[in-house]
Amino acid sequence: MPQIVTAAMLVIGDEILSGRTKDRNIGHLADIMTAIGIDLKEARIVPDDEDEIVAALNALRPRYTYIFTTGGIGPTHDDITADSVARAFGVPCEYDARAYKMLEESYARRGIEFTEARKRMARMPRGAEHIDNPVSVAPGFRIGNVHVMAGVPAIFQAMLDNVVPTLKTGVKMLSATVHCPFGEGVIGGPLAEIQKAHPDTIIGSYPKYDGGRFWTELVVRARSQEALEAARAAVQSMVDGLAAAAG
Amino acid sequence: MPQIVTAAMLVIGDEILSGRTKDRNIGHLADIMTAIGIDLKEARIVPDDEDEIVAALNALRPRYTYIFTTGGIGPTHDDITADSVARAFGVPCEYDARAYKMLEESYARRGIEFTEARKRMARMPRGAEHIDNPVSVAPGFRIGNVHVMAGVPAIFQAMLDNVVPTLKTGVKMLSATVHCPFGEGVIGGPLAEIQKAHPDTIIGSYPKYDGGRFWTELVVRARSQEALEAARAAVQSMVDGLAAAAG
Repeated sequence: MPQIVTAAMLVIGDEILSGRTKDRNIGHLADIMTAIGIDLKEARIVPDDEDEIVAALNALRPRYTYIFTTGGIGPTHDDITADSVARAFGVPCEYDARAYKMLEESYARRGIEFTEARKRMARMPRGAEHIDNPVSVAPGFRIGNVHVMAGVPAIFQAMLDNVVPTLKTGVKMLSATVHCPFGEGVIGGPLAEIQKAHPDTIIGSYPKYDGGRFWTELVVRARSQEALEAARAAVQSMVDGLAAAAG
Repeated sequence: MPQIVTAAMLVIGDEILSGRTKDRNIGHLADIMTAIGIDLKEARIVPDDEDEIVAALNALRPRYTYIFTTGGIGPTHDDITADSVARAFGVPCEYDARAYKMLEESYARRGIEFTEARKRMARMPRGAEHIDNPVSVAPGFRIGNVHVMAGVPAIFQAMLDNVVPTLKTGVKMLSATVHCPFGEGVIGGPLAEIQKAHPDTIIGSYPKYDGGRFWTELVVRARSQEALEAARAAVQSMVDGLAAAAG
């Protein structure tokens, strides 16, 4: 039985729910997880509210191998992710000595005052490990199966690059795409039959709509090349048959 | 006390979680909700899995005034939203006579066969009301406080335009933005003081990072113009003071 590794994402931030900022991190995480064979199973967006963050974390972390959060780890009053994660794990949130020193030295080097606000970025749940931030020093952190990262996409992506080598990965889900010039109404019936005949694959049908015309992208996914190819061939043959009949 | 109206969004689809399709509907819904004075409080993305959809719906619908779903209402085997919503409400999912007739006539007019797959799009929970689909006929539906819409952005947006006039709206959250040429480390302390002094506002700090330089967008939100203006003036004065000190 191939190993299945799962993940969920928790996006923290009022600015996403108000529409002011459009999230780009979910799509990036999804791409990376798919590339390394981890199944992203759920994503949630919650406001900057400690009770909401704690409830979401405690709902997600027993269910999935890994949890990834973005947002709320900066120096301002609305950055409450570290406190919320600590509360979810029932540990104190405190200044991390190494993070404090890194930040102190970095600001000193640049001749910038190490304010109380900036010191907040050295706080993390007791027992957390750093996630390096090559962009702006202040680290993310990991505790248990929860990886806490920045919301600014450039920093999130850099942190995630540092996290990926530490993850156990599953058997990569392979995929093959069949372009289908017909809408879902044409293919729905036969496609359901193909799915039934190939239970070890997941066949997705993604309707596209361009300038008044429907077409469909059919995506076969499987963890073995053989299963993938058998189902892909069946889907392609269905599309070819329909095209011949229509042509 | 101004009326508070809340909403949550449920995005249904494997294709979003695999990264193949990047969601654009959450951001659009967020913009529209903010514009009409409804607070979007949470968003979730779940796979095409009936148990997951039912669990998410039943977690969300008692908590918020309105729930909006996108995805999974097409004609293929992986379109299971109507069945899942019916199960969440404990009612049968059945052919809706009016939707069936609309679809039948539309396909007849275009000389297209009304296949079993296409007929699936006429299925909805018993007691549901239509949400008109001006793009491709097959309606969305509303049952209780749940609005079920298409995942294709052009169709989702058209359906949502039809839903908006039916919603009760709250007192619009007003907002004012102050551009701040400093990073969050500079302003974190004084901004927290301003937030404390203006408890009837929400002051958000959104770090921006462009080409090696941090700056911040400070957003004050409030339901009254007076509260908004008082807090905005305090934030602006803080930024002006820092600029004068730095200059």
